[in-house]
Amino acid sequence: MKKQDKYVKAKIISIGDELLIGQVVNTNASWLGHILTVNGIEVISIIAVGDGEDDIMKALESNSDVDIVLMTGGLGPTADDITKPTLCKFFNTELIQNEDALNNVREIFKLRGYPMSERNVQQSFIPKSCTYIPNRFGTAPCMWFEKNATVYVSMPGVPFEMKSVFETEILRRLLSRFKVTPYISKVVMTVGVGESFLADRLKDWEEKLPDFLSLAYLPQYGMVRLRLEGRHEDKELLHSTVDREIEKLRAIIPDNIFGFDDMSIAEVVIEMLKKENKTVSTAESCTGGAIARMITGIPGCSAVYRGSVVSYATDVKESVLSVEHQDIVKFSVVSKEVVEQMAKGVKELLHTDYALATTGIAGPDGGTEMTPLGTVWIAVATPDGIISQRHNFGKERDNNIQRACIVALEMLRQCLRKK
Amino acid sequence: MKKQDKYVKAKIISIGDELLIGQVVNTNASWLGHILTVNGIEVISIIAVGDGEDDIMKALESNSDVDIVLMTGGLGPTADDITKPTLCKFFNTELIQNEDALNNVREIFKLRGYPMSERNVQQSFIPKSCTYIPNRFGTAPCMWFEKNATVYVSMPGVPFEMKSVFETEILRRLLSRFKVTPYISKVVMTVGVGESFLADRLKDWEEKLPDFLSLAYLPQYGMVRLRLEGRHEDKELLHSTVDREIEKLRAIIPDNIFGFDDMSIAEVVIEMLKKENKTVSTAESCTGGAIARMITGIPGCSAVYRGSVVSYATDVKESVLSVEHQDIVKFSVVSKEVVEQMAKGVKELLHTDYALATTGIAGPDGGTEMTPLGTVWIAVATPDGIISQRHNFGKERDNNIQRACIVALEMLRQCLRKK
Repeated sequence: MKKQDKYVKAKIISIGDELLIGQVVNTNASWLGHILTVNGIEVISIIAVGDGEDDIMKALESNSDVDIVLMTGGLGPTADDITKPTLCKFFNTELIQNEDALNNVREIFKLRGYPMSERNVQQSFIPKSCTYIPNRFGTAPCMWFEKNATVYVSMPGVPFEMKSVFETEILRRLLSRFKVTPYISKVVMTVGVGESFLADRLKDWEEKLPDFLSLAYLPQYGMVRLRLEGRHEDKELLHSTVDREIEKLRAIIPDNIFGFDDMSIAEVVIEMLKKENKTVSTAESCTGGAIARMITGIPGCSAVYRGSVVSYATDVKESVLSVEHQDIVKFSVVSKEVVEQMAKGVKELLHTDYALATTGIAGPDGGTEMTPLGTVWIAVATPDGIISQRHNFGKERDNNIQRACIVALEMLRQCLRKK
Repeated sequence: MKKQDKYVKAKIISIGDELLIGQVVNTNASWLGHILTVNGIEVISIIAVGDGEDDIMKALESNSDVDIVLMTGGLGPTADDITKPTLCKFFNTELIQNEDALNNVREIFKLRGYPMSERNVQQSFIPKSCTYIPNRFGTAPCMWFEKNATVYVSMPGVPFEMKSVFETEILRRLLSRFKVTPYISKVVMTVGVGESFLADRLKDWEEKLPDFLSLAYLPQYGMVRLRLEGRHEDKELLHSTVDREIEKLRAIIPDNIFGFDDMSIAEVVIEMLKKENKTVSTAESCTGGAIARMITGIPGCSAVYRGSVVSYATDVKESVLSVEHQDIVKFSVVSKEVVEQMAKGVKELLHTDYALATTGIAGPDGGTEMTPLGTVWIAVATPDGIISQRHNFGKERDNNIQRACIVALEMLRQCLRKK
C-alpha cells in the first residue's frame, strides 16, 4: 500500500467539459466512490477535468500517493482524439489496433443491426502498453495500465457502460491485485419515520457503538437509509459485531425497517407477494405510472404484477375503473371515495388479490382550499377490504410523486406483514 | 488573468467524506460550474476531498493557475474544528471572533426560537486575514481571502445556503473583481441517429466553425445532445454567430433535432399535441409505465395525456386491450400483430387521437431464437393508421426500457411533424 497508510487508496478522475460547466452531475464518481468503499478501497479524492490534453495530463501526474487511479469518460467515437493519445503520451507508448476490441465493436453493431462507420473502427485502436479489458456494453474500450506500482484504469463515461464493465471486469481484477483491509457497510432501509425522530430514538444505541463502527443517516423521499460501516483486520469480528448491532437496531425500530442494502421497497413487496402467491395491480392518477415503473423496473416482477391503469383523465376513472360519476362530482376527484373505488376497480378489472391506487394534485399548480396543492389520497385494496390515507407532500412535483409511490408501497407492505 | 490565457479561471474544492464514499452526489459543484460558466468564468477543475487537514491543505496548494478558488463544505457546527484552523494555517493567520458573524448567528437562533449552544458561538470565530461575508441563510460564515492574486472563497456545504449566499453576495463581488469574457452555450437535442453517424454528417460543418466556438457530443439513451459553446469579447457577434450556426445545423439534420437546451422529448411531444388539440394514451408492456412516467412528469400534460394501460400480464392484453388470443398464440406476445392491436386497443378504450404501445423482452432473462432478449416492438396509432417498428436495445433492463421509451416518443413526434 502506498505511503505509510494501511489502506488501499484510490483516486477517481472524471473527464468531460460537461462536468465542469454543470451540464452533467458527476454520478459516475459517486457510484464508484460507493462501490470502492464497500470493497475496502479508500477513495481519497475525486477530480473532474475538461476534455483537453493538458487537463488530462495534469490529472494523471502526481498520483504517487494512491494505488489505483480510475478514469471515466473521454472515450466516445467523437471524443477519442484526445484521451487515447494523451494516455499514450503519459505511458510513453503508441496506438495499435486490438483484435478483441475490433471484434467487440463488430458484435455490438451486428446485434443492433446498424452499419459500422470508420469512427467505430478507430475505437478498436488502443495504447500498446495497456491490457485490453472487454466492454460488452458499448463500443468504447476499457484499458488497464501500470506505472510505478500504481494501476490506472480508463473506462467509458456512459454510466450504464461504466457500471457494467466495472462490476463484471474491473472490480475483481483490482481485488486480486491489491490486498485490502476488510471493510463492512450495512445499509438498513427504514420508512415511516423522519430523520430527526429516528436520530433521537437511536441516540443511546449509536453512542454505545464500538469505535471501529460508524453510523450515517441518508434521508430520501420519506425513507431514511442508515449506513453502519467500519474497517477491521479481523473480518470475522467485524461481521459478527455488525450483525449483533443490527439485531439491537431491529429491536428498537421493528416496524420501520423494510430491508437492507439499498433493496427497494418495490422489491420487498414483490418478494412478499411471491411468498404468498398473490398478485397486485395499480390504478394511478397523480403518480402517473411511477408505481408501475418502480415495480416493473425489477426483474421477475411479472410473477406477481399484472398491470396498471394510469387514469390520468377524470372520465377514464369512470369508464375503465368504474368510479361512480356522482362521487367524483360530490367528493371531487381527489377524495377518499374516489381513490377507494379506483383501487377496487383495478383489482376487479385485472383480477388481482391486491391493488394500489393514487389520486392527488402533484403540482406545481392546482389545488383548492379544501384540497390544497400537494394533497394525495392513497388506497390499498386487499382480499379483506380497503384502507386509504390522505397525505400532503408539498408543492414540488417530482418529490410529491416519489413520496406518494413510497407511501403506497409501504401501505401494501404493512398489509402483507399482518397476514 | 492567470498565465498567458485570456479567460478568468476557477477551481472548485468540495470538502466532505460523504462525497468520497458516494453517500452524497456533488450537486453543489455542478450548480457552481453552471453559474460560473454562464457568467463567463471558466471552471478548469472540480476536486472533492475528505474532511482531514492534509486533504484540505493539499487541495489549497498549487492553485497558481487559477484566479478563483471556491470551497464548499467543512463549516458546520460539528465540522468546524478542521476547516477553519486549516485555512488559518494556509493563510498564515489566526482565528478571532467577528462581531458581524456573532450577530448573524444570534439573529438566526432568535428567528428559529432555539437556544444557542457553545458550538454556535464558536462559529463566529473566523481567520483574521479574511473578509467576512454574511450568510443570512445559516450559521456558518462565508470567508473571502486573497493570496498571490488568487481569490479564495470558503462557503457552507448545505446546498441551499451555499446557493443563496453565492447568488446574493459572492457572484457580484467576483464579477467586479475580475473582468470576464462573454460566454454562450446552446444545447441542441437530437434523436434517431447515433453519435458516430451524427459526427460524420456534421464533420464539414464542425470543421468550418469559427475558432471561438466548439462542439461537444453527449449521447444518452438513443439521443445525442450537441453543445455548441464559445467565448468572445464581442457579445453581440458571439450571439449572432451561434444563431447562424444553429440554423446551418438545422438544415443538415432537420429530422433529428427535436428541441433545445435540455428540453425532453416528452415535453416536445406534449407541446405538439397541445398545438394540434389532440390527445394521446399509452399501452405499455415491457416499458411497464415508464412512458406514462415520462409524460406525467411534465406539468400540464393532462391537457393531452389521458392515461395508460400497463398490460404486464398477457391476458390483460386480451381482456382490457382487446388483443386477439389467437394472434398471441400464433405470433407470440412480442410481435407486430400484438403491439399494433395494443395501440389500437388503448386508443379506443381511452378515446384518444393517438396511442403508443410497447411489448418486448426487457431482460435480464428471457428471449427465444425468434425473439431474442432485448427485442422490443413499438407501435404508434394515429388517426390515419398504425405504424410499428422492431428494435433490439441489448440485454440491460433499464437501458432497454429507457431506449424503448425514447423511440416510442420519437415515432409519435415524427407522425405529428408530418401533419
